[in-house]
Amino acid sequence: MTTHPPFGPDFRWPDFNWPEFLPGWVWLVGAGPGDPGLLTLHAVNALRHAETIIHDGLVAPAILDWANPEAERIAMAKRGGQVSPTQAEISALLVERARAGRRVLRLKGGDPFVFGRGGEEGQVLARAGIPFRLVPGITAGIGGLGYAGIPVTHGRVNAAVTFVTGHDINGHAPPLDWAAIARASPVIVLYMGMRTLGEIADKLIAAGRGPEEPVALVQNASTPEQKVLETSLARAAAEAEAAGFGAPVITCIGRTALLRQALDWQGQAAGDALRNPDPLT
Amino acid sequence: MTTHPPFGPDFRWPDFNWPEFLPGWVWLVGAGPGDPGLLTLHAVNALRHAETIIHDGLVAPAILDWANPEAERIAMAKRGGQVSPTQAEISALLVERARAGRRVLRLKGGDPFVFGRGGEEGQVLARAGIPFRLVPGITAGIGGLGYAGIPVTHGRVNAAVTFVTGHDINGHAPPLDWAAIARASPVIVLYMGMRTLGEIADKLIAAGRGPEEPVALVQNASTPEQKVLETSLARAAAEAEAAGFGAPVITCIGRTALLRQALDWQGQAAGDALRNPDPLT
Repeated sequence: MTTHPPFGPDFRWPDFNWPEFLPGWVWLVGAGPGDPGLLTLHAVNALRHAETIIHDGLVAPAILDWANPEAERIAMAKRGGQVSPTQAEISALLVERARAGRRVLRLKGGDPFVFGRGGEEGQVLARAGIPFRLVPGITAGIGGLGYAGIPVTHGRVNAAVTFVTGHDINGHAPPLDWAAIARASPVIVLYMGMRTLGEIADKLIAAGRGPEEPVALVQNASTPEQKVLETSLARAAAEAEAAGFGAPVITCIGRTALLRQALDWQGQAAGDALRNPDPLT
Repeated sequence: MTTHPPFGPDFRWPDFNWPEFLPGWVWLVGAGPGDPGLLTLHAVNALRHAETIIHDGLVAPAILDWANPEAERIAMAKRGGQVSPTQAEISALLVERARAGRRVLRLKGGDPFVFGRGGEEGQVLARAGIPFRLVPGITAGIGGLGYAGIPVTHGRVNAAVTFVTGHDINGHAPPLDWAAIARASPVIVLYMGMRTLGEIADKLIAAGRGPEEPVALVQNASTPEQKVLETSLARAAAEAEAAGFGAPVITCIGRTALLRQALDWQGQAAGDALRNPDPLT
């Protein structure tokens, strides 16, 4: 249902030099964390005009419903433990469809340039002489946590935040200097990495982070299926497993996770009481 | 001029449970880095329905042109070296206008929860019993760099990226463990901090980062006034000063900055030759 048309029946788009989605171009577009209202105007433009849509498994079905119904749609989802298309296959498909003169929308959950391989795909297109446009999207590590009432920075907590992919291409914790990460940044945001969460937590605790440090996990952020788990660094992996958490999950490690006690705007809009206006004291 | 209406004259918004901007509510909204096409649908909704708009100095004028023309508009810009409204004054104004029953749009450049004090303002609203909604925006450190053809992550460069505010409330480099940051994260994105760039570069080099490490600065990212400077860690501060760079600036420190040689999609669309399809080798 449309409970409240967002722009009014007489709304006309303001004059603006809208980019035209030209045949033979590829638009690399971020779809955001899930809520269709977090699509950008450029992304909606792309969805309406694309003739081929090649999307990953993180794009919410509600967003694909907004696409031009006549567009060819190709799912290129990478899933752990299943036969998945390779990056080379995806890139080759982008090139093939663009060379056939189609308007090709490469649609990714979040932002293409944040753990999204958008750079790699752009390089393939550049080498092939195919013109492309980037449309950034809301990344789940910021906007998804925001829907849970968790800011990634706060003036009383941190002047730095580190975003980390929770697993490398083989499913292991990436070979980073975790001790340096532990000291560098009061807030760490993990993308995916449910399977490696315990290993990463152990490394951070060994490097001096407190076992009781606040941690929040957000599954299916910004969608009607959003689930949030508030826990601690030492207990996060076990509690997430017990609660049945699985991909897609974003994890916030650090004291800004406490702010959900004050800033859970979705809960408060639904009638929940304010738990604590000043959770940092 | 409207060169290409984005959604077509007959376009109808898909059915969707649009949130209604209710009287007495505050929406904390991110306006993105500058390009109005990077507004989210929720942000456009907010601009059309707000009765009071309280915006910071980073919101592009082209975006404010899209607001309901009858809305009261209040600029609350913080500028170095000038008398600026305090955070307490801004928060008090949000509360006052919301208590008067108005639909209050608090509009910030970028994302409210990334170095934007959105958490602090949300806490004030929660304590005052004022209902609020967060609308995340595209943060300049991701989307602004993307407009310059620079991804903040790339599979061959980094599994971690650190976002840092370049100055504390007094204009100095924030008191972080810069040596740990230097080791933790192959890519570092600085928000603002033109005045502290030399100091930060010195700390990073002292901690082992190479003086020749690639650095890119992007001023007025995603707007028609966008300017990009490609330089190195050792030369960044002097070259930025010589080039007259000033706020708002985003700085990328790390090898993903090289990818602009392949991914400068704006330049390539304007006819620039591809400089190097594989700048990482």
